[in-house]
Amino acid sequence: MQLYEKPHYRLNILTNEWVLVSPQRTKRPWQGKSEKAVVVPQKTYDPSCYLCPGNVRANGATNPEYTEPYSFVNDFAALLPDVPHEVFNQGLTQAKSESGICKVVCFSPDHSLTLPLMKVEDIEKVIVLWQKEYDELGKLPDINHVLIFENKGELMGCSNPHPHGQIWAQQSIPTEVLKKNNAFASYWEQHQKTILSDYISQEIEAGERIVVQNNHFVALVPYWAVWPYEIMIVPLEPLAHISQLDEAQRNSFAQIIKEVTTLYDNLFETSFPYSAGINQAPTDGKDHPEWHFHMSFYPPLLRSATVKKFMVGYEMFANPQRDITAEQAADILRKLPLIHYTKA
Amino acid sequence: MQLYEKPHYRLNILTNEWVLVSPQRTKRPWQGKSEKAVVVPQKTYDPSCYLCPGNVRANGATNPEYTEPYSFVNDFAALLPDVPHEVFNQGLTQAKSESGICKVVCFSPDHSLTLPLMKVEDIEKVIVLWQKEYDELGKLPDINHVLIFENKGELMGCSNPHPHGQIWAQQSIPTEVLKKNNAFASYWEQHQKTILSDYISQEIEAGERIVVQNNHFVALVPYWAVWPYEIMIVPLEPLAHISQLDEAQRNSFAQIIKEVTTLYDNLFETSFPYSAGINQAPTDGKDHPEWHFHMSFYPPLLRSATVKKFMVGYEMFANPQRDITAEQAADILRKLPLIHYTKA
Ligand SMILES: O=P(O)(O)O[C@H]1O[C@H](CO)[C@@H](O)[C@H](O)[C@H]1O
Ligand SMILES: O=P(O)(O)O[C@H]1O[C@H](CO)[C@@H](O)[C@H](O)[C@H]1O
Repeated sequence: MQLYEKPHYRLNILTNEWVLVSPQRTKRPWQGKSEKAVVVPQKTYDPSCYLCPGNVRANGATNPEYTEPYSFVNDFAALLPDVPHEVFNQGLTQAKSESGICKVVCFSPDHSLTLPLMKVEDIEKVIVLWQKEYDELGKLPDINHVLIFENKGELMGCSNPHPHGQIWAQQSIPTEVLKKNNAFASYWEQHQKTILSDYISQEIEAGERIVVQNNHFVALVPYWAVWPYEIMIVPLEPLAHISQLDEAQRNSFAQIIKEVTTLYDNLFETSFPYSAGINQAPTDGKDHPEWHFHMSFYPPLLRSATVKKFMVGYEMFANPQRDITAEQAADILRKLPLIHYTKA
Repeated sequence: MQLYEKPHYRLNILTNEWVLVSPQRTKRPWQGKSEKAVVVPQKTYDPSCYLCPGNVRANGATNPEYTEPYSFVNDFAALLPDVPHEVFNQGLTQAKSESGICKVVCFSPDHSLTLPLMKVEDIEKVIVLWQKEYDELGKLPDINHVLIFENKGELMGCSNPHPHGQIWAQQSIPTEVLKKNNAFASYWEQHQKTILSDYISQEIEAGERIVVQNNHFVALVPYWAVWPYEIMIVPLEPLAHISQLDEAQRNSFAQIIKEVTTLYDNLFETSFPYSAGINQAPTDGKDHPEWHFHMSFYPPLLRSATVKKFMVGYEMFANPQRDITAEQAADILRKLPLIHYTKA
């Protein structure tokens, strides 16, 4: 299509926001910042790592000698429980108190691993822990939203290479989730189907943005992708949250997470940095048939292991902009081997 | 106020989105990425710089021997003129063509300068050029929005230290501007005043978030600031766009830009990276009494010249989060000397 070869806008149907696509722009020479190449830890145990089993953390607590995925309350949490309820509303300055809980989830006791290097069965154990946390945190009074996410790599503000993610559970439903809530609710009202069910059917039929697929999940570069190699993993069934995954689905989820992160590492033969997050139904006690959970990966690398896309000036004051199209990105990712480059 | 000492949310009245503030979180130790300290160019002319006067650019064009602020069409533009008008709407995938013009604005022929190191009268000349560009680009058919911005520093994706900014002028009104449009329009309808007039009156009265002020402008850390040392410069008069500035106002604008960027450099005694952008009325041919232009600075540094705030996992999938409060940031900035640290 001619449209896709020139600058154009695409609509994100989940947030109702637009992204500017400039396919002609990859020709520009790069004279800007280059990042340090990632140094992958070799040791399975690092005595100075505050996440390794048995080590002492910054606040003096000691990690147990855990052998399975392990979670604990973040020592320097952004959200705290039992914050007294207060509202401030003085004309044009409005604030409200917020309570919540921040947890850290160690994916493995092995310091040297990352998701693509873990066995599928070990990723399944991480998902079991995520399910437990989503359920338990979500049932607490005053916890209406649970965000499970991972910042991977120094480039993504991750301060420790030990394989781990975070969970921030809180009282309010955050902005990005509210936007998606609106899209899910209004589509459900009109069609009695989730918007993502219809979207993935359309994508599977078209094929051009699909990266990998298995019995229960599809991974694709969304039509409205912002980050160069952004991927969204969606269950084929309209599950509202991860606790609804049965054993077979959990196995497929682990499988596709391993595949997506392996493709990423293989792209530039590096430990690929990203932020990944699972958007799912609020834990506000209501039923959410309109919701369809999905795990998104936002990786910053653009051209090589050391050149990233900057979301700066125009992106901050106007809207996101990308250079390669979603179709090009999917095509490149799809053609990469599914075996990790360090093991090939 | 008790509320401000614990985690809380604050409302951005211009975008209607919330930011999570976690004042207790600055205590966390930093073991993450540290950035290279900025190396400031010493030479007033660099033969390898594609923005210096008389030099050849990547596409073969030669810069004139300019002595005043100089603008030209970006050689690797994200937006192009004369894109054929097309719309694609296939169920859940929607796109539309977009045409526009991207320009580069060299602030000075002197390679070694930055805004805080320029003379006020030379910053005034930059503003004159911005006014001319806003007017001329805005009058073109199919240009309904003009964004003037600067990415400063490698950390903000800037590929060249030569003092320069950019202008992206385009057909559509971008997402961030649409959000502000809504806020401006609905406030105007109710009050026949701009929302920023009332907001800055309230802030000037309160005082605690004001950084500097002069006869025609105020610079403050907005109540809803996202970036650690975010600042917004607002004209006291409700001007919809920069072309409405008269000579005295232009002088005050140049003065306050110099002051704000000087405070930034003095904060960590470094050439402070930021993205700055001027949000102003669309150039859609309509009158915009509801608009009130403002220049915002989004600087990433948090703790020192080498430790920045990462807007990653939680911020991408939920909403922005900050550690220090707007009041703390304003207080720190306000107390810094107004003379540049390299000249003190
Ligand atoms: O045009 P430049 O300076 O090469 O590019 C820089 O600014 C642009 C506009 O904010 C961004 O899209 C790019 O990611 C950034 O690297
Ligand atoms: O909690 P960490 O890993 O120290 O911090 C990291 O993740 C947080 C949640 O995305 C961000 O707010 C921080 O900016 C980032 O550095």
